Amino acid sequence: MALFKVFGANWLAALVVLLFAVGTVVSMPNSLPKLEKVPHGYAKNWLYSRGGKPRNETKPVNAESCVAPVVQTITAPKENIFAGLSDVEAASVVAFLFDQKTLNLTTSDEAGSWDNTITLVELLQPNKTAALSYLDGNGTPPVRYAHVMLNCRSTEEPYYQDLTVGPLPISNGTTTIAALEYPYTRKTEGKVRNLDADADEALYADWLYVIAAEIQDITLDWFGGVAVGEDNDTLSVWGIDPLWQDDGIIRWDQFWNTPTGDFDSGTLLPTGLYFGSNVTGRDASQWELLGWYYNGIYYKTTEDFKAAYASPDFVKHNPNVDGDWAWTDHLGSSPEQDVIAPPVSVAPSGSRYAVDVPQKYVKWMDFEFYISFNRDLAMQLHDIKYKGERVLYELGLQEALAHYAGQDPTQSGTAYLDSFYGFGPYSFELVAGYDCPSHATYLDTQFYTGETTHTHKNSICLFEKEAQHAMSRHSTGSYVTVNKNIYFTVRNICTIGNYDYMFSYEFYMDGSMKVEVRASGYIQSAFFANNDDYGYQIHDSLSGSMHDHVLNFKADFDVLGTSNTLTKTALVPTTETYPWSMGKSRNTMKLNKTRVVSEDESKLFWDHNSQTQYQIVNLDKPNKYGESRGWRISPSEGTAHLTVENSSNLQNAANWAKYDFAVTRRKDTEPRAAHAYNSQDVANPPVDFDDFFDGESLEQEDLVVWFNLGMHHVPHTGDLPNTVMTNAHSSVQFSPLNYLMGDAGRESVNMVRVQYGEGEPSDVVTFGGQEPQCLVDMATLQPDLTTYIGDVVIRKFPFDPNNPYFETGSI
Amino acid sequence: MALFKVFGANWLAALVVLLFAVGTVVSMPNSLPKLEKVPHGYAKNWLYSRGGKPRNETKPVNAESCVAPVVQTITAPKENIFAGLSDVEAASVVAFLFDQKTLNLTTSDEAGSWDNTITLVELLQPNKTAALSYLDGNGTPPVRYAHVMLNCRSTEEPYYQDLTVGPLPISNGTTTIAALEYPYTRKTEGKVRNLDADADEALYADWLYVIAAEIQDITLDWFGGVAVGEDNDTLSVWGIDPLWQDDGIIRWDQFWNTPTGDFDSGTLLPTGLYFGSNVTGRDASQWELLGWYYNGIYYKTTEDFKAAYASPDFVKHNPNVDGDWAWTDHLGSSPEQDVIAPPVSVAPSGSRYAVDVPQKYVKWMDFEFYISFNRDLAMQLHDIKYKGERVLYELGLQEALAHYAGQDPTQSGTAYLDSFYGFGPYSFELVAGYDCPSHATYLDTQFYTGETTHTHKNSICLFEKEAQHAMSRHSTGSYVTVNKNIYFTVRNICTIGNYDYMFSYEFYMDGSMKVEVRASGYIQSAFFANNDDYGYQIHDSLSGSMHDHVLNFKADFDVLGTSNTLTKTALVPTTETYPWSMGKSRNTMKLNKTRVVSEDESKLFWDHNSQTQYQIVNLDKPNKYGESRGWRISPSEGTAHLTVENSSNLQNAANWAKYDFAVTRRKDTEPRAAHAYNSQDVANPPVDFDDFFDGESLEQEDLVVWFNLGMHHVPHTGDLPNTVMTNAHSSVQFSPLNYLMGDAGRESVNMVRVQYGEGEPSDVVTFGGQEPQCLVDMATLQPDLTTYIGDVVIRKFPFDPNNPYFETGSI
Repeated sequence: MALFKVFGANWLAALVVLLFAVGTVVSMPNSLPKLEKVPHGYAKNWLYSRGGKPRNETKPVNAESCVAPVVQTITAPKENIFAGLSDVEAASVVAFLFDQKTLNLTTSDEAGSWDNTITLVELLQPNKTAALSYLDGNGTPPVRYAHVMLNCRSTEEPYYQDLTVGPLPISNGTTTIAALEYPYTRKTEGKVRNLDADADEALYADWLYVIAAEIQDITLDWFGGVAVGEDNDTLSVWGIDPLWQDDGIIRWDQFWNTPTGDFDSGTLLPTGLYFGSNVTGRDASQWELLGWYYNGIYYKTTEDFKAAYASPDFVKHNPNVDGDWAWTDHLGSSPEQDVIAPPVSVAPSGSRYAVDVPQKYVKWMDFEFYISFNRDLAMQLHDIKYKGERVLYELGLQEALAHYAGQDPTQSGTAYLDSFYGFGPYSFELVAGYDCPSHATYLDTQFYTGETTHTHKNSICLFEKEAQHAMSRHSTGSYVTVNKNIYFTVRNICTIGNYDYMFSYEFYMDGSMKVEVRASGYIQSAFFANNDDYGYQIHDSLSGSMHDHVLNFKADFDVLGTSNTLTKTALVPTTETYPWSMGKSRNTMKLNKTRVVSEDESKLFWDHNSQTQYQIVNLDKPNKYGESRGWRISPSEGTAHLTVENSSNLQNAANWAKYDFAVTRRKDTEPRAAHAYNSQDVANPPVDFDDFFDGESLEQEDLVVWFNLGMHHVPHTGDLPNTVMTNAHSSVQFSPLNYLMGDAGRESVNMVRVQYGEGEPSDVVTFGGQEPQCLVDMATLQPDLTTYIGDVVIRKFPFDPNNPYFETGSI
Repeated sequence: MALFKVFGANWLAALVVLLFAVGTVVSMPNSLPKLEKVPHGYAKNWLYSRGGKPRNETKPVNAESCVAPVVQTITAPKENIFAGLSDVEAASVVAFLFDQKTLNLTTSDEAGSWDNTITLVELLQPNKTAALSYLDGNGTPPVRYAHVMLNCRSTEEPYYQDLTVGPLPISNGTTTIAALEYPYTRKTEGKVRNLDADADEALYADWLYVIAAEIQDITLDWFGGVAVGEDNDTLSVWGIDPLWQDDGIIRWDQFWNTPTGDFDSGTLLPTGLYFGSNVTGRDASQWELLGWYYNGIYYKTTEDFKAAYASPDFVKHNPNVDGDWAWTDHLGSSPEQDVIAPPVSVAPSGSRYAVDVPQKYVKWMDFEFYISFNRDLAMQLHDIKYKGERVLYELGLQEALAHYAGQDPTQSGTAYLDSFYGFGPYSFELVAGYDCPSHATYLDTQFYTGETTHTHKNSICLFEKEAQHAMSRHSTGSYVTVNKNIYFTVRNICTIGNYDYMFSYEFYMDGSMKVEVRASGYIQSAFFANNDDYGYQIHDSLSGSMHDHVLNFKADFDVLGTSNTLTKTALVPTTETYPWSMGKSRNTMKLNKTRVVSEDESKLFWDHNSQTQYQIVNLDKPNKYGESRGWRISPSEGTAHLTVENSSNLQNAANWAKYDFAVTRRKDTEPRAAHAYNSQDVANPPVDFDDFFDGESLEQEDLVVWFNLGMHHVPHTGDLPNTVMTNAHSSVQFSPLNYLMGDAGRESVNMVRVQYGEGEPSDVVTFGGQEPQCLVDMATLQPDLTTYIGDVVIRKFPFDPNNPYFETGSI
C-alpha cells in the first residue's frame, strides 16, 4: 500500500519538516554500554571450554585482541530440582537395591537372560504442586525420590517394573521401595511385560543364527557371506520393532549385508531375504518358523525356499553392497569456490548469556530456565521465564515415532518408538564449529545405565547467533530503521541408531520461542523388489522406504499463573452488509473467536490454509484493552501427524501421533504422553495417551499442549548417503500475543536509524550498542577436535568415583 | 531405531576393525586449497563496495590480516538479455515518443491532470523461444523492443495504454509504435481505464478538502486539527484502494492524524470518521457525497452528521494520537546483556561467489543466474542453472495482495494490489550490516519514472552465510561426521508505503533453493470502535486490522529441457494384505503416484497434513533406476492463499490468490499472472489469471508453476511499532528429487570426520577445507552508514547523463 500517493502536498511538507528535524536527532549519543548495570557474576571468568582447557585464556585487557567467547557465570535463583540424582544419590540407591535380597538382583556385568537387573535409576521428577511451592514461595525443595526400573527376567513371564525409592537420602528407617503406578494410565503396579528378555542370548544363539545356518550354503553362494554368529560373518540378521503382537509374538527378520568400509551404512544394505518367526514364550525349542519371503513370493518352509532357490527359474536380484555411494566422506570434485574458507560467526565481545553450570540454569536477556536430562528423552527445559514471569513450567520431548511401510515384512512391521532405546544414551558429544558455532558454550549430560553413570561431554550447546534477517525494519524516502535479530539456541543431538535428531530450542528478542527438529543420518532402506508403492528406487537394489517421523513434545504453559484457556481465532470467509453499505452485501472475511472448552474437543489439527490461530491465554488477566494476554502456538516450518490410521503396528502405543496437537488438563498422574516400554504391549500399553481425555473442562485450568513435529519422508537419491537437514525439518513457534504493550525487540540497543537525502552524507542514529574495535584471530576459532572424547563413565556399584573410564557406543 | 541392539557380537567386532582402520584414515592430508583451479577473473580485485570506496584495500599478502570481503569478478557467458534498457536506449525511446505529435505528450514536470504523459519505458522481455535460441544455441540476442505505457488523460475517459516501440535501436525507417496486447487476457489494444487521473488535483482540491472543510469546526474541536490542504494541516484524508467499482466509482475516505514525530507512523493514527463519495466521471461538480460513518452509525448527509455531533448523546471516542508507542527508535531499558556487542558473521577469506556486475550475472558454487529489475515487480531471476543445466528459466514475484476486512468502510474496502505502485521504485538501498551481513556484495538497480531513470544504490545484496544447522551429520559410538551448511542469498527489500517486504532467494549445497518473504514495517490499522470481529484492540483507540498477504511468484521450470510434467506422490492410509501376512490384513500406508494431466486439474492446494508431495519432473529423462529426475516443490515456512471467497473488492483482479499454487502450460501470451493496473477495472481486468486455464494437456509440456507465499495477519500489540519478521514469514522450497545420484553436499570439502574412543585424543579427518589463520579487524566490519544515499536520478528528456541528481521518496 502506498500512503504517499494520497498525502499529496502534505507529504512534501512533512519531508521538509523531517529534514530540518534531522539536525537535532543526530545529536543523540552513541553512548558506551551501561556497564554499571552488569550483574554480579558477569566478570569474564573462563568457566567452561571444549575439552576442559581454554584455548585463549583471558589475559589482562589487550586493546587489540577480542575477548575469548567465555561464558558468564551466574548463580541460579533456586536449586535445580529437576536436574537429576547426584552421583552419590544414584550410588546409594543402587546399593540400597542390592541390599534388598527379595529383589534377587544381579549386576549388569554378571547377569544373564534369566537374571534380574536394574535398568534405570533416576530422579523421579517432583510433582508440580510441590515444585511451585518451592519455586514461587518460601517452601523447601520437594522431597526427592528415585525412579527405579527393574528388568525382572528370572521368570517365564519376564517384565519390567517401575518403582520409587525414597525419600532420599537413603535412610534405613524411612526409605522404602514402592511400585510406581500413578504416572501411568494402566494400573499394573508399574509392571509391563518384557518381550526383549532373550534378545541378547537365546534369540540369536538358539534361533536366528540357527535358521540362517540352515541356508548358509545359499547365502554364501548368493550374497557371498553367512550370518552364523562368527566374527567373520559378513551378513547380519535383524528385523521388526515393535515385535508383532497378534496371535503370539511374531518377528520378521531380514538378512543385511554388513558395511565393508569404516561407515555406519548398514541400514542401506538389505538383501531382500526375510523369514518370519513366532517367538512366543521363552523356550526357543517351542518357537516356530513362519516361512520365508523373497521377491514377492512366500515360502512356507525352509525346504520350500531351498527348493525354489535350486530351481532354474528362481529370480535372484543382487543384494545391496557397501561402497563409497554409502559413505559420508567427501566425494566428487568440489565446486571451485568451495575450497575457500567460508563465512563463520564470531562473538567479538564474548558471550551475552550466563550459566550456572552445576545447576544447569541459563539466562539470556529476558529469558531464563533450567535444564534437565534423562535416559528416556534426553534434554528437557523447566521453569522457562520471560521478563520474570513463568511462561512454561516444562518443555520437552515425549516420544519419537518412525513408522515405516512397505511390501516386505520388515519395513511393514517397523514402527520405532525411540524412547525404548532412550535418547539420553545417544545424545553424543557435539562437534564444535560444526554442530554449533565456535563460540558456543557446552554442557555435559549424565544418564544411568548398568550400575554406571555415563557422562556425555559437551552434549548440549548454548549459543547466540545473528539471524539471516532483521527483527524488524522500515524504509521511507528520508530514513530507514533496522533492528538486528540476535537469538539464542539450546541444542542437543541424539542419534538413535541410524538417525540423528537435532533438537533446537530458540529464543528471540521479541519474546518468541521456537522448538525445532531437523533430521539427518542414514535412512533405513528397503530392498527394491516390488516396493514401488512404498518408495523410489534409489540405488542398484535399494528402495527409499517411506516412513513418517512424528515427535511429540509437552508444553506445560503457565500464562500469568496456572489458570489458562486455549482460544481459537479463525479467519472465515463471510458475506456481510454494513450500516454504511447502503443495503448491499459484500464477500469479505471476519474473525471467529472461540474457546476450546473441554477435553471432548481438544484433539486438534492445524487448520486448512492456516486459517485458525491457536493461543493459550489467561482470561482472567486481560491487558488494559481487555484483550487476553497469551502465547500463540503455530507451526513455523511444517509439522506432521501420522499418515497411518489405526496402525496395526502401534495399536494404542502412540495415540498422541494421530493429532497435530492436543490439549489436556495438567495432572501429576499424566506427566508424559508415553512410556518408554509402550512397545512391549502395544494393545494395552502402560500409557495410552487417549486415556488422558475424559471430558474435563479446559476453561481457566492448568493446561498442557502436547504438540507434534514431524516429517513425511519418502527418501530419494539425495538422501544418500545421509538425509539433508535442508529438507528434513519441522518446528513450532510460541509467540507473545497481546502479552506486552509493544514489540519487546525495541528494547534492544542493537538497532540503527539512518536519516538520508539529497546525496549528502547520512546521519546515523545509534542507541548505545557496542562497536567492537578489536581483532579476532581466526586461528583461535578452529576447534581442537582432537579433544572429542565421547563418554566418561563412573561405576556405581561398587561406587568408585575416582575411577572413571571411557566408553561410547553400544549401551 | 537402534541397530546396535541386534548387531550383537558383530558390533563389537566392527568397532575393533574400525579402531584399527583409523590409523590409515587420518593420514589424509589437510591440504591447502587447490588454487590452481581458480578460474579466470578470480583475482581479488576490489570491485564493488558500500559507498564506492574500499574500507580495507587488498594489500600485498599480509600474513596477519584476513582479506577484505571483495567480490570476485567473472564474465557472464552470455549477454543478460533480460536486464533492461540502457540509459541511452531509454532516452532514445522517450525522445522518439515525444516526436510523435499524434500522442500529444507532455513532460511529467509540466503535465496536469488533463495531459498525456509517459508512465513507463522499459525493456519488453524477450519471448522465451527467441531467448533460448540465443542462450542455448548460436542464435543472436533477441531483437529488443521497449515496453511503453502512456497515461492518456486528455479525455473524459482517461486510460493507460501499453505499447511497444521497436525494434531498437531507434531507426526512423524501421522503428514503429504498436499496441501491446498479446501478453494480456483482455484484448483491448493494451488499454485499461484510469480511475486515478484526478487523484493529484481535482480529487483533493475540489472534493476531499472541500468536504473536510465543511466540518472543520468539528475536526478542530474533536481532533484538534483540520484537513484542508494547508501546510499546517494536522489531519489527512485518504481511503480505499482499489476504488469500489459497482454502480459507479465509489470511494470511502477516513480522517487520519498525521505523525507528530519523525516517524512514518501515519497508518497507526485513524480517527474513525469516514465519508463516502461517488466520484464517477471527471467532473467533480457531478460527484456525490454518500454519507458519513462514525462508531457504527451511518449519516446520510453532512447536515445529519453535524446535527448528531451537536447533540448531547453523541458518543465521541478519542482519535489515535502519535507518540513513542508508534516510533521505532530504541525504547525502554534493554536487557543487561544486550549492550555487549553481539555475534556477527565474518568472511575471513573473502567472497566465494563471482559477479559480472554490468551483466548482473551471478555464480555461486554450482548455481548461476542472471538478475533483472523492473518497475512493477523489482528483482527477477533468469536462467537459473545448476551444474550446468537450466532448472528455472524465470523466477520472480508477480503481484502482492494485502486484503483487509473490517466493520468500517475503509478497511472493508481495501485490497491493495501493490504492483500498481510498483515494487521497483521502492526497492530502497539496503542497510549494510543490518539488512545483509557486513561481508555482503551490493548491486544497484534502475527503474524508469517521469522521463528519468532512477538508480537505487546497493539495493540488491548477495551474501553467503553459515546456516544455524549442518547440512548433514551422523554420530556413532566410534566416529562422527558433519557437513557444514553454507548457503547463498540474493535479497532485496521493497517498502510499499507502510509495509516492508524482504525477498530472499536462497541456494544450498544440496541443490535446494528457497524463495522466502518476510514482512515488517507499519501495519495499516483500523479505528477500534465495533471492530472486535476484525481484529484485536492494540492501543487506546486502535484495532489491529485483520488482513491477508498473498504474494504470487512465477517459477518457469525447465527440468532437463522444456518437456516437463507435474507429478503427485500422496501418502495414503490403506489396509493391505501381503503374500507373507498369512491372510491377515493390516492398517498401514502406501504411496499413490499420479500426474496432473491438464489445466482442468491444475489449480491446487497443499494437502492436509502435507500428505501429498508435488514435483516437476521430466518423464522422458529418467535416472538409471527409471525414476524421473525432477524438483520437489514444498512449503517450507508456511504459505497462505486468500481467505476471502469471491472477493467483492477484487472480483477478477487477483484470481491467482485463490489457490496455493497453480500450473499452466507456458505461453508467450501469458508471461505474468497479473497486470499492474488490474485494480483499475476489477471486473474485467487486463489479466484475469483464471483465463490461463483452458484445459490443455500438461503432460511433458513447458510448465509454469504460479505459487503463493503469504500470511494471515491478525496484528496484536507486538506489531507495534513494526511487525516482527520472526512471525511474518513464508517460504517455498525447491529441492532436487532423484535428480542426482546422491547428496551433492558431499562434494564440499567443508566437512569433518572425527574418530574417537577410549578417552584418547581423537583423529580428525579433514578434506582440504581452508582453516584461515588471519586476523579479522572488527573495526572494518562496522558499516559506514553515512554513505547511505538513496536514489541517484538521471534525466531522460532532455537527456543529460552528466547531470544526475538525488531524490528518494514519493515517486
